Amino acid sequence: MNEQPLILNGTVVAQQIKDELAVRVQTLTEKGVVPCLATILVGDDPASATYVRMKGNACARLGIRSLKVELGKTTSTAGLVAEIERLNDDPSVHGILLQHPVPEHIDERAAFEAIRLDKDVDGVTTAGFAQNAFGMAAYPSCTPAAILAILDHYGLPIEGKHAVVVGRSPILGKPVSQMLLNRNATVTVCHSRTQDLGRIVALGDIVVAAVGRPQFIRGDWIKEGAVVLDAGYNEGNVGDVDYEACLPRVSAITPVPAGVGPVTIATLLKHTVEAAERTL
Amino acid sequence: MNEQPLILNGTVVAQQIKDELAVRVQTLTEKGVVPCLATILVGDDPASATYVRMKGNACARLGIRSLKVELGKTTSTAGLVAEIERLNDDPSVHGILLQHPVPEHIDERAAFEAIRLDKDVDGVTTAGFAQNAFGMAAYPSCTPAAILAILDHYGLPIEGKHAVVVGRSPILGKPVSQMLLNRNATVTVCHSRTQDLGRIVALGDIVVAAVGRPQFIRGDWIKEGAVVLDAGYNEGNVGDVDYEACLPRVSAITPVPAGVGPVTIATLLKHTVEAAERTL
Repeated sequence: MNEQPLILNGTVVAQQIKDELAVRVQTLTEKGVVPCLATILVGDDPASATYVRMKGNACARLGIRSLKVELGKTTSTAGLVAEIERLNDDPSVHGILLQHPVPEHIDERAAFEAIRLDKDVDGVTTAGFAQNAFGMAAYPSCTPAAILAILDHYGLPIEGKHAVVVGRSPILGKPVSQMLLNRNATVTVCHSRTQDLGRIVALGDIVVAAVGRPQFIRGDWIKEGAVVLDAGYNEGNVGDVDYEACLPRVSAITPVPAGVGPVTIATLLKHTVEAAERTL
Repeated sequence: MNEQPLILNGTVVAQQIKDELAVRVQTLTEKGVVPCLATILVGDDPASATYVRMKGNACARLGIRSLKVELGKTTSTAGLVAEIERLNDDPSVHGILLQHPVPEHIDERAAFEAIRLDKDVDGVTTAGFAQNAFGMAAYPSCTPAAILAILDHYGLPIEGKHAVVVGRSPILGKPVSQMLLNRNATVTVCHSRTQDLGRIVALGDIVVAAVGRPQFIRGDWIKEGAVVLDAGYNEGNVGDVDYEACLPRVSAITPVPAGVGPVTIATLLKHTVEAAERTL
């Protein structure tokens, strides 16, 4: 049987990141620069409002200013882009986060693209994606970066491992697969059209679940000793992984909640502080 | 035993593309627009000079103007970028190709990035890469596009297949993996740090060799019935695949020469014609 699996505690990883950031925020503030994250919420989706509030609270606890921009649900693409451009031009704003999803009539991609690369702390622009894929300097998407931060915190090796990413979204599956590839993992990307998904997931020394379907990744798909990272967060505090079923097989796993989620928020704060530091 | 494998004849595929283009070039020319590809050669690498000449000849045969820019091997990054910007601003130029590699003292990435997206017919900019990865409108890199054109020409399905890409370069391995993913293949990317490469290659229903090492992909790695695409071109007209050893196992395979190579050039011409059409 398996040894006791390692539970990858995102709260601990996030706290360590925030402890380091607290010192940097203080240094910045002493130099007269208060790091500032602008959050944009369009419409009245309650879950989105909650996410934005959580991010604002996390900023506040660390001495990062958060500028909350709330736009009505009838806002046009042009109106949203104009607001983003105003924030691009505001030197007191260091990072811009547009909360996904926006109302359906808005061209979300056009809005994301309007965010200037040096303020794209959430890693949503195509420029940011490509620069990351090519190992350049832009901020990676926060959840992919959080996944790597967790692996690194616990000293879990990436190089030479076979990583299986389930999901191919522009802010999760695609960037995390590029980041794992750049860290010298062999990377397989699966999705809704993958045939015999269980057989493919079973190849993974590292499995990243980024599907957005509750408990979609089954325990009997997981190779003995694999490391499982669950980036899902579905209604009722349930991840994309069937946690209980995976537990007897994995060597390490993130729980939901208190897994990838808190590290994602800490990563957003980290990027905002870095963006502020770069203005010095 | 295997049925007779299908030899994927790149010359035939390229000819069909060029036949279609000839009509479009004529239409453009009648409207007073002569499609023009600017090729930039820096230094005196004989192989690069040959490639540029081949591309120029292919343009000429189709009625596409080629503007040959040749810069000395001591050209600086700034000098090269200035030349690219001049071509960006020249309305008679529709596409710009910077022949890789440039002399070592030049920041090749900075030079590629200087090419304006609407003239990036070779698909080398990060913006082009990301737009392709996200299914947007930019021109894909030519070799990856050629690989897909060959599969499509012969009616070989991509969706639901497991594609194994060996190589992760910015203009080949990375973009072709994204394009196969967007066509609903399950995609694995391997590279020099992949462990047990043969076992991974053996998963592939489709295998793309993009390593740059002669006959690196062994016959006994190939799954029975796989489709093998060899994007390699090494000294002595040798691909990255051990062709003779693979032949008894594959259902289809590209030879070298007369495989991916001619389709790559035809794709470059196609993008140039499209860029000219978009100016109408």
